[in-house]
Amino acid sequence: MKTISTLDHLARNTGNRSRRPLAIALLLTIATALATAVAAAQEKPITLKEMGSFHVGGRLVEISGKPIKEVTFSPGGVPAKVDPNGTYQVEQMYVQYFIPQKRRGALPLLLWHGGGLTGVTYETTPDGREGWLNYFLRLGWSTYNSDAVERGRAGWAQYPDIFKGDPVFLTVANPFERFRIGAGEGSYSSDPAKRKVLPGDQFPVEAYGNFVKQTVPRWTTTDDATIAAYIAEVDRVCPCVILFHSQAGQFGFKVAQARPERVKALIAVEPAGLGDPAKVAALKDVPTLMVFGDFIEQDSRWPKIRQNALEFADKIKAAGGHVDVINLPKIGIKGNSHMMMMDKNNLEVAAVIQKWLAGNGLYH
Amino acid sequence: MKTISTLDHLARNTGNRSRRPLAIALLLTIATALATAVAAAQEKPITLKEMGSFHVGGRLVEISGKPIKEVTFSPGGVPAKVDPNGTYQVEQMYVQYFIPQKRRGALPLLLWHGGGLTGVTYETTPDGREGWLNYFLRLGWSTYNSDAVERGRAGWAQYPDIFKGDPVFLTVANPFERFRIGAGEGSYSSDPAKRKVLPGDQFPVEAYGNFVKQTVPRWTTTDDATIAAYIAEVDRVCPCVILFHSQAGQFGFKVAQARPERVKALIAVEPAGLGDPAKVAALKDVPTLMVFGDFIEQDSRWPKIRQNALEFADKIKAAGGHVDVINLPKIGIKGNSHMMMMDKNNLEVAAVIQKWLAGNGLYH
Repeated sequence: MKTISTLDHLARNTGNRSRRPLAIALLLTIATALATAVAAAQEKPITLKEMGSFHVGGRLVEISGKPIKEVTFSPGGVPAKVDPNGTYQVEQMYVQYFIPQKRRGALPLLLWHGGGLTGVTYETTPDGREGWLNYFLRLGWSTYNSDAVERGRAGWAQYPDIFKGDPVFLTVANPFERFRIGAGEGSYSSDPAKRKVLPGDQFPVEAYGNFVKQTVPRWTTTDDATIAAYIAEVDRVCPCVILFHSQAGQFGFKVAQARPERVKALIAVEPAGLGDPAKVAALKDVPTLMVFGDFIEQDSRWPKIRQNALEFADKIKAAGGHVDVINLPKIGIKGNSHMMMMDKNNLEVAAVIQKWLAGNGLYH
Repeated sequence: MKTISTLDHLARNTGNRSRRPLAIALLLTIATALATAVAAAQEKPITLKEMGSFHVGGRLVEISGKPIKEVTFSPGGVPAKVDPNGTYQVEQMYVQYFIPQKRRGALPLLLWHGGGLTGVTYETTPDGREGWLNYFLRLGWSTYNSDAVERGRAGWAQYPDIFKGDPVFLTVANPFERFRIGAGEGSYSSDPAKRKVLPGDQFPVEAYGNFVKQTVPRWTTTDDATIAAYIAEVDRVCPCVILFHSQAGQFGFKVAQARPERVKALIAVEPAGLGDPAKVAALKDVPTLMVFGDFIEQDSRWPKIRQNALEFADKIKAAGGHVDVINLPKIGIKGNSHMMMMDKNNLEVAAVIQKWLAGNGLYH
């Protein structure tokens, strides 16, 4: 299993693999320059042609045979009868969009968050810096940030009547130990001074408490509903580019497999789930970038998660598709956690993605 | 019980109560002109100095004595141990802010949604028009739109371990019959042609299904936590003006009673809950506007809800405070449902609020 990166492509394009160090230096220089330019651009206003939101997808479900309740919604208010029997709207998702006045992205850019999270993932970082939403918006991308089914502003449905299974709640310690912020199991402590942070980790650990406030309950039994809603979003918004993270790995690839004519590029940021291996041919005309951060080898789960992703990438390539894989440390960008869109060098990582998009003719 | 409106103030300021019809005509003309100006302004870009989000408030809670689970978060992924024992972050809230390049509002404007809803209330209307968020932003208000504790991007906590009581889910029919869109109980039908809409109702009934997608589960047992988080928001963002709707009636008034020095004006849009009657004196320097829509007299619950609000207003006034009450039909703005920020004349209603803010020296 070999990791193919844009660097390899750069090297191949120059016709000489020995030029790879030069290609690395070049890409890094571009990324750094872009990051610096964006830092300067943050002083400038964001000028929007339009901003708004909508819900999309979902279905109606009947509930019957339950007793009527009387509910006083506000203290001192007037009681109202609430009949729990009837029709419920469930499994829709929420999308918030920002259209820049000067569009430079060739297509809308959809941002899909990971498990136990919402679109807040791409907004302001836990320590108050600009996130990827503002980054791509400032560069002129029409950006659609969303909350998947059962997360955030999408709402959630009663269980076990409608959703099967129980929701999963994460402790404060869990993401710290699982997202390559701390050094694995047992690395979290309620005393910040005693937390075992991975040396050189770029996550803003001083604001870890704010990150935990972004986490929301999740189910592990709602994947089909989530995919259906994402397809509804794609049918409404696309052709487009989809950038997705972690759990949304399976959603990004499966939705692209369902709508290959509408999805013009995929950016898989540490995908923890993948598409249907039997349908990789559907992805052959969808250029794809996979990005992985640092500390993977020393983690208990991430070597296998990445390996799964690379094998899926190989299957796409064997079917005639094109997948670039960037392992950030290999191009000199070190210290990235699983939440690289929040890391201190988040705009440097975004610049690598922007460069890839431009290289694929999706930016003018 | 007498309803005091800005019209009475206009009339009083002219020194002659008989000029009230003139004052009505004047206010309506101004409101209509403002609405027209805003419609034209929608063609113009929205220029932001800054946009972003944060979570605020909440507390840590310990859970113990539960078995460890193994969870596979994504199909084909690598199972992870999830120990449900430990510390949980709960009861924070979510705030998204937009700072216009050219600020004309004297203070930040906070928008607080009602029960079973999120900040989406103030975004694009269910039928795709601009909502009050864009309206006030375009007029130059720094606008902070939020999801209260347990709603939307704020997340929610396990029950009954942390939240006491069960969540309440609303059927598709419930808000239609309760929010003065349909003509009360039994007015909803799954067949849109058979729905009994109140004659002249301004709610965009053709997009009612999209509105229902905005509703989220809610508790009736989280008021104290919600107030604590709103106070944390006020401590971070204010001095400010707070505009609140329905359930947030109690939150707006109680938070202002807790932080009267930070809250410079209140706009209560059909408040369904109220402040502490024993602490009305705290509100004497907080100018307040109450706005009510149409069809109240013919509803089974709204006469009493409004009566409670008017009695609370009288108590504030008796303590030396200042409350204006606008019943929209009395100033010629007819057909408004409980969700007036989404109604077809939503910008006309917003213009009445804007006029009141300007009249109170909060706009330049």
